[in-house]
Amino acid sequence: MKLTCLQENLKRGLATVSHAVAGKSTLPVLSNVLLATDGGRLKLAATNLDVGITHWIGAQVQEEGAITVPAKLLADVIGGLPNDRVTLTLDARTQTVKVECARYTSNIKGIEAEEFPIIPTVSDRAPAVSLSPATLREAIDQVAFAAASDDTRPVLAGVLVRLRENRLTFAAADGFRLATRVVQLPEAVAQPQEFIVPARSLVELARIAADSEGQISLTMSPSGGQALFHTENTELVSRLIDGKFPDFERIIPSQYLTRSILDTAELAKAVKLASFFANPSQNVVKLTLEPGGELGPGRLVISANAAEVGDNTGEIDGMIHGEGGQIALNVKYLADAIAAIKTAQVALETQGSQNPGVFKPVGQEGYVHIVMPMSLR
Amino acid sequence: MKLTCLQENLKRGLATVSHAVAGKSTLPVLSNVLLATDGGRLKLAATNLDVGITHWIGAQVQEEGAITVPAKLLADVIGGLPNDRVTLTLDARTQTVKVECARYTSNIKGIEAEEFPIIPTVSDRAPAVSLSPATLREAIDQVAFAAASDDTRPVLAGVLVRLRENRLTFAAADGFRLATRVVQLPEAVAQPQEFIVPARSLVELARIAADSEGQISLTMSPSGGQALFHTENTELVSRLIDGKFPDFERIIPSQYLTRSILDTAELAKAVKLASFFANPSQNVVKLTLEPGGELGPGRLVISANAAEVGDNTGEIDGMIHGEGGQIALNVKYLADAIAAIKTAQVALETQGSQNPGVFKPVGQEGYVHIVMPMSLR
Repeated sequence: MKLTCLQENLKRGLATVSHAVAGKSTLPVLSNVLLATDGGRLKLAATNLDVGITHWIGAQVQEEGAITVPAKLLADVIGGLPNDRVTLTLDARTQTVKVECARYTSNIKGIEAEEFPIIPTVSDRAPAVSLSPATLREAIDQVAFAAASDDTRPVLAGVLVRLRENRLTFAAADGFRLATRVVQLPEAVAQPQEFIVPARSLVELARIAADSEGQISLTMSPSGGQALFHTENTELVSRLIDGKFPDFERIIPSQYLTRSILDTAELAKAVKLASFFANPSQNVVKLTLEPGGELGPGRLVISANAAEVGDNTGEIDGMIHGEGGQIALNVKYLADAIAAIKTAQVALETQGSQNPGVFKPVGQEGYVHIVMPMSLR
Repeated sequence: MKLTCLQENLKRGLATVSHAVAGKSTLPVLSNVLLATDGGRLKLAATNLDVGITHWIGAQVQEEGAITVPAKLLADVIGGLPNDRVTLTLDARTQTVKVECARYTSNIKGIEAEEFPIIPTVSDRAPAVSLSPATLREAIDQVAFAAASDDTRPVLAGVLVRLRENRLTFAAADGFRLATRVVQLPEAVAQPQEFIVPARSLVELARIAADSEGQISLTMSPSGGQALFHTENTELVSRLIDGKFPDFERIIPSQYLTRSILDTAELAKAVKLASFFANPSQNVVKLTLEPGGELGPGRLVISANAAEVGDNTGEIDGMIHGEGGQIALNVKYLADAIAAIKTAQVALETQGSQNPGVFKPVGQEGYVHIVMPMSLR
C-alpha cells in the first residue's frame, strides 16, 4: 500500500470513524483502524462489533493494500502534522506504516488487515427510506436519551424505528419516561417494517449526520440482523436488538385535564434552580399549576425541598387551562424533557398527580415526551 | 444579617473564593463559605487550612451578622438566578439563609460563623513588596509547575520566594528540573527575606491576579508563618513550608558548549508529535543538534522510539552555534519547559549528553529552566 492524501481529510476521516473504535477489548485489532485502498480512494473503518463506521477520503493511490494501525496513535500523529500532503507507505514484511509529511516521518506498527472483522457495506438492495441529516439528527437527539442506560431489559436500551405508510417513528422508553418522534415522509414506504437499534448506535449516527450534507439513507441487511445508514462518504452499520418493544402508543394519554403553555427557556431555568435542592432529596420536584383568572395569567410554581440542605421555590407565568393541580416529577427527567423541546414554548398536559406529565413542543407536530409521576409528599 | 447585593458581584465573588474551599474534609464547616457583613460590604471567605481567600463585594447592609453555608450549593443557586438584586436574610434561630431574587426564593441551611477558622487579614505592617498582577502571574505560571506534585520532600512541593536588594526571585525544583524567574523591582527592599510557599497556593494567587487590576502586595504575618497577598478586594493567605530550599543557583550551569536558537512554536509542535512515541517508552525523546555551515542553517532533529509501537523523527531549522551533539530528555518536562517560554524564540544551551539542557527565552531576561538529561540509548 502506498498513497498520498491531505492531512486535513485524513484527520477528519479518523475523527469520523474513531467513535466506533472499541474502548477496551480483548481483541487488540478492535482498537485499530483499518486503512485500505478502495477504487482510487482510501477507506477508513473501525468497529466495536456493535457498530461499525466506514469512511472514504480522496487519495492518490500508487500501490494497493490494506493494514490496521492503533486508532488513537494514528489520530494523534495525523492531528500533530501540518496541513500538507501525507504519504502512507506500508512495509508488508514488518506490517509497519510509514507516515511522511513535511519534515516529519513516523513509523507505526500495525496488525494485518485480514484480522479485522468484515463490516457489511451497502448491498444492491434499495434503501428503505432516505432522510435529511438535520431531520434525522433532531429526531435522534429528541428520543435516544430516553432509552435505558443499562441492559437489564435489552429492548429498552434501544430505540424502536418503525416505518409505516408515510411515517417514520422513533420511540424510546426506560420505564420512567417515553420519548417518541414521528417524521412525515414525502411518500409511503414500499413495505412496513420495524426494528430496534441500540441507542448508542443512533447517537453515533447523529454525530455523523451533523457533518453530512446529502441525504442519509437506510438499508436493512439481507438477513435483517443489521441496519446500514449511508451518506455520501460515510457508512454506519449497527447490530439490531432482538425482542418486542413495549406497546408505547397505549401509554400516551389521549386526553388531559390541565394544559399549560410555558416559556421553554424560563421553565428550564426554574427547573435547574430547583434541581440543586431536589438532587439531595430523591430528585423530587413539585409542580403546582395555578390557572389564570380575569386578573392575570396563570402561573407554575416549582419547588424542591431537601431536609438537611434547604428548600427552593420559583414561579413563572403561563397560560394554564383547566383545573390546575400538582404533580411531582423526577427533576432529571423533567430537565431532559424540556431540553428535548426545541420550540420557544412547551405544552404540559396533566391529569392530576397520579398520571404522567405529557410534554409537547408548541407549534411543531410529531414529538411527545411522557414522564411518570412520583408520589407527592 | 440582612443585606442586598447584585447577583453578578456575588457570583463572581463566590467564584473567587471557591478554590480555597476544602474538597474533602473531616470538618464540615470547611466545605462552607463564610458570609459576613463588614463595614458596609459583604465579606466572603473560604479556607482549606493551607490557603484562605477573602473577598469583599459592595452590599446594602440592613442588619449586621455572619453565617457559613455550603459553598457549592450557594454558588449553584446564585449562578442559576437572573442578573438582578439578591437579598440575603439570616434566620438566626434556624441558622438558615433566605436567598431572594426576582421570583425565586431559596432557603439554605448553614453552620454558625463561630465555627469557621479565623483567616488572618492584613495587619498594619508595611508590605514587603508590591507587584503588577501581570508580572506576578507570568512568574508563577513559569515556575510553579516545576515544583514536586507530592510531599515526599516537603520543600520541593513549594516555590522559593526570595527578596534581596531590588530582585524578587521565584524558584521551584522537583529533582528532575528547575525553573527560576527573577523580577526586577523598581527599588531595593527594606530587608532581605526568603520563604517557601506551597506551589498550589501560588497557582491560586495567579488565578486571582488574572482578575485583578491594581498592584498586588505581599505582607508577612507577624510570626513569619504565613504570607498574605493583598489586592483591592481580595486577600489570599497561605501557610509557608518549613525547611531549607536546595541551593538552586549552584545547579545553573555557567557555561555551554552548544547554543541553539529555535522557533518556540515549531519546537513545541515537533515535541508534541514525538511525545506520542516517547510516552510508551519511558518518555525519552532524543535531540540531535547539527550546527549550520556555509550552505545553510543548523537543524535540530527530534526523535522517539517505542519498541512495540513505532518511531518518529522530525526536524526543524535553527541557529546552532558550537559543537552540536545529542541529549535525551523527558518529553513531558521538555514540553513543560517550552510552554513556559513566552517569547517567539527559545535558546537551548547544552554541554553534551551528560549535562542538563538549559532553556531560556530569547530577548527576555530573568527566566531559566533546566531539565536533567536521561541516558541516551
